[in-house]
Amino acid sequence: MELVGISKLNADYEAAMAVRKGIKLFIDESAKENFKKAGIEVAGTKVEMISDSQIVIDATPDGIGAKNKALYVSMKKPAIFQGGEDADVAEASFSALCNYDEAKGKNYVRVVSCNTTGMLRVICTLKNSFKVRKIRAVLIRRAADPREVKKGPINSILLNPVELPSHHAVDIKTVLKDLDILTMAYVVPTTLMHVHALTVQVDGNPSKEEIINALESSRRILGISKDSKIASTAEIVETFRDMGRIRYDVPEVVFFEDSIHSSNGEIFLTYAVHQESIVVPENIDAVRAMSGLKEKEESISLTDSTLGLLRGRLV
Amino acid sequence: MELVGISKLNADYEAAMAVRKGIKLFIDESAKENFKKAGIEVAGTKVEMISDSQIVIDATPDGIGAKNKALYVSMKKPAIFQGGEDADVAEASFSALCNYDEAKGKNYVRVVSCNTTGMLRVICTLKNSFKVRKIRAVLIRRAADPREVKKGPINSILLNPVELPSHHAVDIKTVLKDLDILTMAYVVPTTLMHVHALTVQVDGNPSKEEIINALESSRRILGISKDSKIASTAEIVETFRDMGRIRYDVPEVVFFEDSIHSSNGEIFLTYAVHQESIVVPENIDAVRAMSGLKEKEESISLTDSTLGLLRGRLV
Repeated sequence: MELVGISKLNADYEAAMAVRKGIKLFIDESAKENFKKAGIEVAGTKVEMISDSQIVIDATPDGIGAKNKALYVSMKKPAIFQGGEDADVAEASFSALCNYDEAKGKNYVRVVSCNTTGMLRVICTLKNSFKVRKIRAVLIRRAADPREVKKGPINSILLNPVELPSHHAVDIKTVLKDLDILTMAYVVPTTLMHVHALTVQVDGNPSKEEIINALESSRRILGISKDSKIASTAEIVETFRDMGRIRYDVPEVVFFEDSIHSSNGEIFLTYAVHQESIVVPENIDAVRAMSGLKEKEESISLTDSTLGLLRGRLV
Repeated sequence: MELVGISKLNADYEAAMAVRKGIKLFIDESAKENFKKAGIEVAGTKVEMISDSQIVIDATPDGIGAKNKALYVSMKKPAIFQGGEDADVAEASFSALCNYDEAKGKNYVRVVSCNTTGMLRVICTLKNSFKVRKIRAVLIRRAADPREVKKGPINSILLNPVELPSHHAVDIKTVLKDLDILTMAYVVPTTLMHVHALTVQVDGNPSKEEIINALESSRRILGISKDSKIASTAEIVETFRDMGRIRYDVPEVVFFEDSIHSSNGEIFLTYAVHQESIVVPENIDAVRAMSGLKEKEESISLTDSTLGLLRGRLV
């Protein structure tokens, strides 16, 4: 795969950093003057970029992707949309571990949102080892990304939404159509990561060790031991900063081994989701699935080794 | 009832405000010089205050109450402890709506913590109307009280604890001995109120309206309508500030009507708990229960009218 370039609307620090890193920057004709004023070098127009590409990854804000779709259709270019769009923007919603093959041959695919991507990885991994009957989840969502200086709340717990279910259960069902799942979501004043408190009803009575083994055998899921003394999103991020991860990205789901409680077929589990990076590997896999470049295991394996993703126990 | 006075260790703004409000201040002998220097008028020693009292409400920080107990025992004074103490500090743990009569004639009673007090009010109210089989709860806890400038986290979600259950389930069982309950707790960067996401398994299949009616018929529980457009702890607090509540205290449990979801005997419910004030009415009731001054309904009614507590739908 080769990156033709990226497209930006605003002549800001993000655009400048992309150019500084050697990534070709394409812009909307209308923004030409702004980029010139800001002294940011431009390689061409957005339409030229799309014309030179075989597939577009649309990572625009919620709702903009749907508006952009007409352009991709008119230019006969396949496109990948993000979870901020409604499911019907695409022919299929996508989670690499859950339904890679469903994207095969499709022209429009939507990678589900960060929370849904994380939750689907965990659910599909559990489904591989156990008969999952029912899922109830509470999502404790970060309020804003670190760079988002205008978003809140800064001192409140916000029901998001008040009325059940939150969109996550609906979104999960775009991939796992028949799952009995209900989600409640709350926004809290932090920027680092989301946290999910999951309750899973399964057949039988699996042990804590069996559940940890199932999760740590999966790709893109990392366990945190009791001995690490990590009990928060801040400490997870600190670990990845110390590891030298660029931007402290954590595209892996990170679960707390000791949060697993299993009794009478009821499994409790807490894990964290890094909203900024978790969907990156899934977008890359979606390109391969749609274009038929690689089969599922080969694609996931290549993506993970390229990005340096870890598995097993983190620390 | 008459307030003999309060006792403070530190000669700080809290002590100064008490005196300014006409409350008699008693101190430890050892702190005499500090209060003199600060110019805060003192009515006598802590021992004199206890000697003049028929009952002590010990509202000291976690663990200090247990240390203070020897003094109350040696002075033959009954005492009420708070939820920060272990249950065995007292002869009974107390929730006015749940087990008022259990405190009758006891010399040492412990009012359970803020979260447990709120949750017990809701559970016992539901138990009055429905056959409760099982409770699973996620607690999203405020990090610190507004005045606590040294506590955190300020940008993290903290599992509290990682290993299940959180102490709340254990604490609930000191009052409702046979309840099947499991709680998971997370601390988030906010100071206003706690939020609980409750899942309750009941016999039958009660409607949303029946559940709202049960809760809004109870004392010390307030409902918030969809039309109010309140969806967060900040907006609850704003409402009570506008109402003119001193310190914006919210001793009532405040639940979101529209958060109630009921299906196949599974009830979902979200409510908020004001950590600073919710145990105040229960402490007052505990005094009456222990001393035999009033029966349950009379005591709760008197406490609520004296404090101006509301019930039904708030807005």
